Amino acid sequence: MNNALLLDLYELTMAQSYSLYKRDTFATFDLFVRALPKHRAYLVACGLESVLNYIKELRFNKEDLGYLRQLGLFSEDFLGYLSRFKFKGDIWAMPEGTVFFADEPVVRITAPIIEAQIIESFLLNTINLQTMIASKASRVMQAAKGRGVYDFSLRRTHGSDAGLKVSRASFLAGFSGTSCVLAGKTYKIPVAGTMAHSFVMTFKHELDSFLAYSNTFPRRTILLVDTYDTKKGIENAIRIGLHLKETKCRLEGIRLDSGNITALSKLARRALNRAGLNYVKIFASGDLDEFRIKKLLDNGALVDSFGVGTNMGTSADAPSLDVVYKISEFTDEKGDFVPTMKLSSEKITYPGRKQVYRFKDKRDRFIKDILGLEKEKTGGKPLLIKVAEKGRIIYKFPSLEKIRALLENNLSKFPEDIKSVYPRYKYPVIISSQLNKLRHSLAGRLAQGQ
Amino acid sequence: MNNALLLDLYELTMAQSYSLYKRDTFATFDLFVRALPKHRAYLVACGLESVLNYIKELRFNKEDLGYLRQLGLFSEDFLGYLSRFKFKGDIWAMPEGTVFFADEPVVRITAPIIEAQIIESFLLNTINLQTMIASKASRVMQAAKGRGVYDFSLRRTHGSDAGLKVSRASFLAGFSGTSCVLAGKTYKIPVAGTMAHSFVMTFKHELDSFLAYSNTFPRRTILLVDTYDTKKGIENAIRIGLHLKETKCRLEGIRLDSGNITALSKLARRALNRAGLNYVKIFASGDLDEFRIKKLLDNGALVDSFGVGTNMGTSADAPSLDVVYKISEFTDEKGDFVPTMKLSSEKITYPGRKQVYRFKDKRDRFIKDILGLEKEKTGGKPLLIKVAEKGRIIYKFPSLEKIRALLENNLSKFPEDIKSVYPRYKYPVIISSQLNKLRHSLAGRLAQGQ
Repeated sequence: MNNALLLDLYELTMAQSYSLYKRDTFATFDLFVRALPKHRAYLVACGLESVLNYIKELRFNKEDLGYLRQLGLFSEDFLGYLSRFKFKGDIWAMPEGTVFFADEPVVRITAPIIEAQIIESFLLNTINLQTMIASKASRVMQAAKGRGVYDFSLRRTHGSDAGLKVSRASFLAGFSGTSCVLAGKTYKIPVAGTMAHSFVMTFKHELDSFLAYSNTFPRRTILLVDTYDTKKGIENAIRIGLHLKETKCRLEGIRLDSGNITALSKLARRALNRAGLNYVKIFASGDLDEFRIKKLLDNGALVDSFGVGTNMGTSADAPSLDVVYKISEFTDEKGDFVPTMKLSSEKITYPGRKQVYRFKDKRDRFIKDILGLEKEKTGGKPLLIKVAEKGRIIYKFPSLEKIRALLENNLSKFPEDIKSVYPRYKYPVIISSQLNKLRHSLAGRLAQGQ
Repeated sequence: MNNALLLDLYELTMAQSYSLYKRDTFATFDLFVRALPKHRAYLVACGLESVLNYIKELRFNKEDLGYLRQLGLFSEDFLGYLSRFKFKGDIWAMPEGTVFFADEPVVRITAPIIEAQIIESFLLNTINLQTMIASKASRVMQAAKGRGVYDFSLRRTHGSDAGLKVSRASFLAGFSGTSCVLAGKTYKIPVAGTMAHSFVMTFKHELDSFLAYSNTFPRRTILLVDTYDTKKGIENAIRIGLHLKETKCRLEGIRLDSGNITALSKLARRALNRAGLNYVKIFASGDLDEFRIKKLLDNGALVDSFGVGTNMGTSADAPSLDVVYKISEFTDEKGDFVPTMKLSSEKITYPGRKQVYRFKDKRDRFIKDILGLEKEKTGGKPLLIKVAEKGRIIYKFPSLEKIRALLENNLSKFPEDIKSVYPRYKYPVIISSQLNKLRHSLAGRLAQGQ
């Protein structure tokens, strides 16, 4: 699909005005999250690959221009500009899988202001979705304490694009696989699935349905045991398990989707073990998220893997991030960059071209970030790296597996508390002295100027 | 995009098992919402057009089959079946824009069980998204009491598909337009936009930015007045309004995006009127939804139009519906349909092939619905109509304008309370006596059978 027109109209109206008044102006924009949602103490950067693919392919074709022309808003001069449009700016970004915090730019654009403006809507849209989901899924992973977690959210994600991106973002965050087949194909993610209640219901007896399914997939059977009476369902699953054992096949697992999962999982584990089916795994699903998984495990539920759906796939407790795209500098008549910032008291921003520096202690643990100016010598490791130069992508996409590993390694170095389901500790993000100075002097000047 | 693989893996594994054991079985599935989210007293059916387009185009191509083959799960026999796959069932559905309630099937499928199962994930995904948004947007419309409302949500919708569908669903619900240009092009929806704070900031003085923009769009200018000091912003906008007036152009409006909107809108209205600019409209935006709009209007805010974003475009207070797809009957060995239902106490369903009947009083007002069996003579108007027969679409899509009008007319006949922001009244949906009887007799039989 051609995504060029996937933008807010005002990007184009402003662009036309810029093309008349600011054709030679360059600007820097920061994409960052203003404040973290409740219960979130960190975010996981996700969406850069989509951003760069979008940038690479961004062209306005004849049909797009025809549509824009008939709106009666745009001059032929501007439509001509759009017909030749190609993003030619620089992009700095945190690699996908980077842990980051409020106020830290996750993408930084320096480009002709028209170009920087035109890409705004798409960047916000895709970084919001993917980062929000990766962050939520990462919390689910933390709550599951090493158990496998699968993405079952396709039926309630907000449309098809979200279906795909949720699978990818949750896999990146450590999930073991997804139910979404197209995501499996697109991103080479393991796909997983069991059976639905309707399948069990179309057979006369539950056992018949289990037999049919296990005959079809003797080495890949997970039986859903709660369609009627869960205890009987577990007994029927055990019969299938023993039957498969005779033919040298292993029943993979059973799935609990309702009722008191803690009690049922203990009962199931005991019954399975008593029957010599210790290897049969117990899957749990049904309205799960990090809060419920924590509760289950705190109560001693004997679950080997979780299937999470709607709550993760929509980030139900926080279905958006406060992600914004703010100008931080632009060129004056002489072509020199001049820092700027938003003044309104509630929504103040940080001026200038910035970098995020991360600091470790001697034990290789992260202790603080400093948000400073790009050329400031603060020490620490800079998190923003250059991924596009004059419109050319100079970044080699790492594999999803590599991003997963990066995130896991990254997370292991952060204080435990920020990874807990109910975090209290706020990881320190410190504004550098130079940035603070710039901000104060600029605030004074801007307030006077207006 | 080919959406054939946009499904949960278990649809395909169950399908392979069905292809061995239930190749000739037909079944009926109901797609319905189990319970309405908090503060929702009605839902607006939306998504049927997507469903039917999906059904029409649903084919598994070579690449899809190649991917499935290498999963090592599927037989060549089944892959051959998929290569010839075409949905050949019947679909009954409520037309888009129909008001409906919990437990009422909004789509009903009768098809070979394999086919009915394969389409499940997509149907749930798209009906969930579109109906959820149309329902939320309809509440926003009610709260706005006749004022114009615009969709500004693209930057925070969950991906590109949601961006488009939110624009369409909210327009269907009565919105005046959208900021999303691609939605404008795709669905012929009016597009709207103003300017961003960054635009104002790149000029030395606010007034310069206003001048530049109004010179570019002398007949389509809405000025964002809160970048620095809102009162001064309004004064500057008035200067532009007067300047435009001299050249026989009208300033279209000003936009308030922060601060005390009620107080600022009154101040702006007074100042505009005093300057002879009574025709200049006041737009408000910034974290709006039905709750905030109600509060603004209750407090006497003088706003002509609202721009709503994230809260509407993600249905933030309820980012999913409890929408499910449940089997209600299937054929026995003789090919006769036998009703079925789910028994588990929390999630009981209604058996048999059903219809929803809507009743009016003498004053043409809706008073109740009856959920009954298809062939039952309950009276009332049946809401489910046949839209596909043996896989052929027999439904002519009405225009979006017609759907809007249908919904508006429909809504006008419902009790006022269900349309309020904090509804208390529950519109009666009554289970017919025959359906009740069937349910009870079947519950007894099914419980015994297991």
